[in-house]
Amino acid sequence: MEPPLRIVEADRQHLGALVAMLHDDFLGQGREDLSDAALDGYRAAFAALSDDPNNTLFVALDETDAPVGMFQLTFLPGLSYGGQWRAQIEGVRTRADQRGKGIGARMMAFAIEQARSRGCVLVQLATNKARGDAHRFYERLGFKASHIGMKMML
Amino acid sequence: MEPPLRIVEADRQHLGALVAMLHDDFLGQGREDLSDAALDGYRAAFAALSDDPNNTLFVALDETDAPVGMFQLTFLPGLSYGGQWRAQIEGVRTRADQRGKGIGARMMAFAIEQARSRGCVLVQLATNKARGDAHRFYERLGFKASHIGMKMML
Repeated sequence: MEPPLRIVEADRQHLGALVAMLHDDFLGQGREDLSDAALDGYRAAFAALSDDPNNTLFVALDETDAPVGMFQLTFLPGLSYGGQWRAQIEGVRTRADQRGKGIGARMMAFAIEQARSRGCVLVQLATNKARGDAHRFYERLGFKASHIGMKMML
Repeated sequence: MEPPLRIVEADRQHLGALVAMLHDDFLGQGREDLSDAALDGYRAAFAALSDDPNNTLFVALDETDAPVGMFQLTFLPGLSYGGQWRAQIEGVRTRADQRGKGIGARMMAFAIEQARSRGCVLVQLATNKARGDAHRFYERLGFKASHIGMKMML
């Protein structure tokens, strides 16, 4: 039987654990800052996410209500596909000591269900080429690697 | 000298020309519908874009104010990179008879400037692998093909 997992909108009390999860990642280590000075930036982003009806930060909680996973879900209006909305997933992370237990797959099933219930035509995401098995993980869930994801740092 | 080009937020009067541009595309032909019955969907999407402060549909107008290009720019809040916003570009199209004149590059330069002025940490986009030269176009502009773009149709 799968262990209990609750996926809920992240609350401000989860912020420290979420930033720690982003930092505890080979790419995140160079991007994230756990110092007090950096907290204001994370708090402002958290407030912007909470205020935006098209953006939600989700947290997966274990049976002790400890955060063990996270992702952001964005709903995007757009003209293409007859004017249908799309859903986008960003920042999928599972806490390092909780990997391999299916938490990622359960978060993605939840995200896809949210997208369906909003009537989205598709779900999209981009995964860094350096994230070894991630694209095979997404392919197993039914995603197609149809696109090249491009970034420009400003 | 480059021909005059004005890049402005799309107005409802441009909607027909924008949908025609999306349809006049080897991928768009299977996705878009030029019938009257489909108009409501496009109108609703246009209204959703106009109402959303984080989403803007831009149109490039030639010297006669005819639409010759289009793209959507989205500003995304997020926790990663210290809580900095990112910009995302979708639906970049140049009218078929206007390609090869640098309109795409000028639209992208405009989009990148908008992203900078909003203080975004990066600009991102995904281009279909079937779009032959598109990823080389973006690489020339300074984008890095660092990611795999994945989609799941719902």
